[in-house]
Amino acid sequence: MALVSIVMGSDSDLKVMSKAAQALDELGVDYEMRIISAHREPDEFFEYAKGAADRGIRVVIAGAGMAAHLPGMIAAIFPYPVIGVPMPTDTLGGRDSLYSIVQMPPGIPVATVAIGGGRNAGILAAKILSVNDSSLAGRLKEMSEKMRDAVAAKDERLGREGYENY
Amino acid sequence: MALVSIVMGSDSDLKVMSKAAQALDELGVDYEMRIISAHREPDEFFEYAKGAADRGIRVVIAGAGMAAHLPGMIAAIFPYPVIGVPMPTDTLGGRDSLYSIVQMPPGIPVATVAIGGGRNAGILAAKILSVNDSSLAGRLKEMSEKMRDAVAAKDERLGREGYENY
Amino acid sequence: MALVSIVMGSDSDLKVMSKAAQALDELGVDYEMRIISAHREPDEFFEYAKGAADRGIRVVIAGAGMAAHLPGMIAAIFPYPVIGVPMPTDTLGGRDSLYSIVQMPPGIPVATVAIGGGRNAGILAAKILSVNDSSLAGRLKEMSEKMRDAVAAKDERLGREGYENY
Amino acid sequence: MALVSIVMGSDSDLKVMSKAAQALDELGVDYEMRIISAHREPDEFFEYAKGAADRGIRVVIAGAGMAAHLPGMIAAIFPYPVIGVPMPTDTLGGRDSLYSIVQMPPGIPVATVAIGGGRNAGILAAKILSVNDSSLAGRLKEMSEKMRDAVAAKDERLGREGYENY
Amino acid sequence: MALVSIVMGSDSDLKVMSKAAQALDELGVDYEMRIISAHREPDEFFEYAKGAADRGIRVVIAGAGMAAHLPGMIAAIFPYPVIGVPMPTDTLGGRDSLYSIVQMPPGIPVATVAIGGGRNAGILAAKILSVNDSSLAGRLKEMSEKMRDAVAAKDERLGREGYENY
Amino acid sequence: MALVSIVMGSDSDLKVMSKAAQALDELGVDYEMRIISAHREPDEFFEYAKGAADRGIRVVIAGAGMAAHLPGMIAAIFPYPVIGVPMPTDTLGGRDSLYSIVQMPPGIPVATVAIGGGRNAGILAAKILSVNDSSLAGRLKEMSEKMRDAVAAKDERLGREGYENY
Amino acid sequence: MALVSIVMGSDSDLKVMSKAAQALDELGVDYEMRIISAHREPDEFFEYAKGAADRGIRVVIAGAGMAAHLPGMIAAIFPYPVIGVPMPTDTLGGRDSLYSIVQMPPGIPVATVAIGGGRNAGILAAKILSVNDSSLAGRLKEMSEKMRDAVAAKDERLGREGYENY
Amino acid sequence: MALVSIVMGSDSDLKVMSKAAQALDELGVDYEMRIISAHREPDEFFEYAKGAADRGIRVVIAGAGMAAHLPGMIAAIFPYPVIGVPMPTDTLGGRDSLYSIVQMPPGIPVATVAIGGGRNAGILAAKILSVNDSSLAGRLKEMSEKMRDAVAAKDERLGREGYENY
Repeated sequence: MALVSIVMGSDSDLKVMSKAAQALDELGVDYEMRIISAHREPDEFFEYAKGAADRGIRVVIAGAGMAAHLPGMIAAIFPYPVIGVPMPTDTLGGRDSLYSIVQMPPGIPVATVAIGGGRNAGILAAKILSVNDSSLAGRLKEMSEKMRDAVAAKDERLGREGYENY
Repeated sequence: MALVSIVMGSDSDLKVMSKAAQALDELGVDYEMRIISAHREPDEFFEYAKGAADRGIRVVIAGAGMAAHLPGMIAAIFPYPVIGVPMPTDTLGGRDSLYSIVQMPPGIPVATVAIGGGRNAGILAAKILSVNDSSLAGRLKEMSEKMRDAVAAKDERLGREGYENY
Repeated sequence: MALVSIVMGSDSDLKVMSKAAQALDELGVDYEMRIISAHREPDEFFEYAKGAADRGIRVVIAGAGMAAHLPGMIAAIFPYPVIGVPMPTDTLGGRDSLYSIVQMPPGIPVATVAIGGGRNAGILAAKILSVNDSSLAGRLKEMSEKMRDAVAAKDERLGREGYENY
Repeated sequence: MALVSIVMGSDSDLKVMSKAAQALDELGVDYEMRIISAHREPDEFFEYAKGAADRGIRVVIAGAGMAAHLPGMIAAIFPYPVIGVPMPTDTLGGRDSLYSIVQMPPGIPVATVAIGGGRNAGILAAKILSVNDSSLAGRLKEMSEKMRDAVAAKDERLGREGYENY
Repeated sequence: MALVSIVMGSDSDLKVMSKAAQALDELGVDYEMRIISAHREPDEFFEYAKGAADRGIRVVIAGAGMAAHLPGMIAAIFPYPVIGVPMPTDTLGGRDSLYSIVQMPPGIPVATVAIGGGRNAGILAAKILSVNDSSLAGRLKEMSEKMRDAVAAKDERLGREGYENY
Repeated sequence: MALVSIVMGSDSDLKVMSKAAQALDELGVDYEMRIISAHREPDEFFEYAKGAADRGIRVVIAGAGMAAHLPGMIAAIFPYPVIGVPMPTDTLGGRDSLYSIVQMPPGIPVATVAIGGGRNAGILAAKILSVNDSSLAGRLKEMSEKMRDAVAAKDERLGREGYENY
Repeated sequence: MALVSIVMGSDSDLKVMSKAAQALDELGVDYEMRIISAHREPDEFFEYAKGAADRGIRVVIAGAGMAAHLPGMIAAIFPYPVIGVPMPTDTLGGRDSLYSIVQMPPGIPVATVAIGGGRNAGILAAKILSVNDSSLAGRLKEMSEKMRDAVAAKDERLGREGYENY
Repeated sequence: MALVSIVMGSDSDLKVMSKAAQALDELGVDYEMRIISAHREPDEFFEYAKGAADRGIRVVIAGAGMAAHLPGMIAAIFPYPVIGVPMPTDTLGGRDSLYSIVQMPPGIPVATVAIGGGRNAGILAAKILSVNDSSLAGRLKEMSEKMRDAVAAKDERLGREGYENY
């Protein structure tokens, strides 16, 4: 049963949100993935947000762009943590998405990650679940170690080849 | 019966939103005034947004600050024009409110006015209604003429007194 | 007879402003479309703005970029609602256009939509006219339902195909 | 035993961070509160970040301003969720703090809340813990209901008194 | 006969625009000073802009704030140089005024000075007139020398008193 | 003999600055064109700035990018009007150039045009010289009329062809 | 003999620049302190910048605000390191000063510190000199230890008193 | 033995950081070049930062992007000067990197150069070392002279060929 729901307002967000799915795949966390627009289908949206906890969802990862209301509106309804992913935008670089997601009023937090930060949203969801799942905590640790090793390998290569041949 | 609904997410927005009410008072337009939070009472919000048209409302003026979702979420549900008023904010000057209101995706417009522009929101609502109300159009014309006269009086005073004594 | 006038300061704005025309075409609203520059032909501009109401225009959609004065100057003259469309700009992303349009002083509102938001300008004009046109209100409702169905179809496809094959 | 650690880089952050503590007090969640500077005492910082999980900490709330490195550096070391609180700044309004906290590279998420959003940081920490604590989930629900009731009471008062007497 | 016209859209701009007048007073340049709003009295505005050259005006200094259209609209009509002074604004610091004034499209320049830069607008007007007025050029040179001496005196005082007693 | 000096800090600015030269060519104004860097050749720069007035230069058009000091430093030395042209920049869109040029302290004005606004710089220089050159004033008027006619022709074409065939 | 020269364009910068002097006083580094304006006294400025190295100056700390040219122009002339201190500004928060100082073109670096960062400028100058002065390196180490101890004392006090009594 | 350490958090920074290396190559300054991530390998990072001074390093050049913590965290540990290079970013143009590097709190300076300013970082490092290395000071002077000559050659070419043939 999925503990994480990845939701986006438009399929144009899929490139960024797929990175969240990939991170959860790597970490062995079940998830569902949905396209639901708070603006274009408010009834479906409300039904989704109200029913998520009963279906067993414990973390929602919501991506949206421009006047990005999806994460905050889910946080107004869904009682567990909501992670917001601001989409990059052509005109304002994603500043509009970021402010619309992170600047939530007192009482309704959205855990915001970087503009375009789909992968970090997936990892953050896993970290939240790892608080009571030591096996998942172990897999997160392995992921960290792989990142560390990848940087070390690049450092070693730079030392060996020099910047002109890298 | 009220044709205009002025709504804000918090009573901290009242100072700005009262200017919308004052403009409508001056123009003789009936309105209701509500405090409803899309974030803090989503059920009440939905009920409000869904019922407004049936109660006769034809224009909604919605004010909100920070990650300002109220205007856009009303526009997702209420079928007639929605005017958004971005609140000034201490940290970002209201840029967060502005982007969260104006940058709506295709299909769901919000007619946005200046940061803190409560008075213009009231006047814009009246202009929308004046399309089919020539009496209101006449009162709007009088308001314009008063503005014009007020500027002319200041110009005359400056000419008479000079900038050092103004 | 056209109730809506779509006007832009330069034919470089046509790509964005055509979206307003397309929306009005879909909704069966008559409009005229003009290229008039407040900066480059002030006399023609004044004549246009002063005569629009008498020709039957009830909503003006004005697009402009950079120091975008066209929407605000029309709003200073034309008595009915003016919708402003800020053009994206290469240097500042359209922030200059947005501020020049939305930050109008008290008394002279411009109903501003998103940067590049031509389609929403067209829909907003129709919403304004729909206040007294129930047939148009019905066509707007159909447009909303089509948007809703399009999102639902994408959600269904994502569920069926998965993000890797979408 | 504290499950949450509230940490800040300077006692000038205390006003904002106290709101996180107050929220946790209201929700009955144990926490510790520390002043530790990644910049001014890197050894103490490293010791703190490395030892936190073993001491039972499961969520860190870290506040910092300007070039705000504390949340991100904790997230590099502490394996469980880190919540970042950007401080308002006199010069840049907190934009510097926000970008320094939210724009983390792939692999190292920080769950960022609004500029000055201490209270939301506390609530978000509780939401994370509530995933496996149904009693805490219940207390969060009560807090939401109180917020809802407070807005409804303001709405009722505005209806009763009008905006001029509010 | 006045060669310079100082014009502003509102008497709230007078504090900044008086600095332009003071500079011209110091330099012995005749000027007129007007309050004229392009937004609130478009007919008066047009009359002013069209008649200025015939009355002998050779430089216009125009100050405006927010969506600041006055300088650019004068530049569209008045054939000689127009100097624009962006007003500081509470919400956006004057960025809105600056962009609305400086980002003019090709063909219609506005000579823009700093936000709140009334004094520099006056000096710039004088420099423009000094191109064919060697006496004025001489007075500008004296003003420069006074500025130089004032800085030198402060430097000398700092050297004598030290920063703690300055 | 050249009355206008077009100067830039680097040949990477030539694309923008050539537009100033082209405008002056169209208007029949003599100019010189130089590449001089205040940062890379301060002695040559000082010599240039100090000698310009004696060589007959009456307006300098200076373009620069990033921390753009060239226009302001010329204005500190050259006694007649200096026009500043902020270059677009890849990272900040030219905001850095704009602020570095327009935000001059009291006493030292730079007449700033739009980011990348080379053409307007040329026209502004001509307008300054036209204050005492009625023949040039006439040629500027012709240029304005051509602009007006070009817009009218586009408007006529749009009316004839429609937006889909334009 | 002074190795460090602290210079500012105006005595309005003295409040920030005094912090640089205080840091050097604490660290036992000799310095001179000057008010010299590149804009208002270019000859004096050039003389200062050209003569500094010969007088034994090895680091210049230059503070300036708005279109802040002083640090960059010194860096164009003085061959040793130049540290730039951007002043806070009322309108743009110091963003203008920061961009004008930090965005130097290739070849002419300015070592830029935070907006209003006078103290860090002093410490950075001392760090530069400490490369070949082990005694000064020792005093810098003591300063670091004092900072560390001050944070630790605050942490201890918070633990003892709690946030409500702090 | 290397006196300068060039370090970056990711090999995606190599294009910018290679310019620092090239500048040091041209100036005959020995350096090492490393890829070390404060976020992904905090232990390796700490070891590197703590050991650098003992290995003889006297200046660190650190490049990082987004929430760029590497330069500031090195400055918290390494006692000698740290130069920070903000990376350009797709979404925010490098503003995030710049603020995260330059806005350091009192006590921990980072000498920040322009966004993408790798070359200037290399030159600044050399200038710091030149304080006690007159041979290096001489080579820096030669580099300056070459820059001056290159600008002069471009100026000469523009004069000879004209802007249309340049």
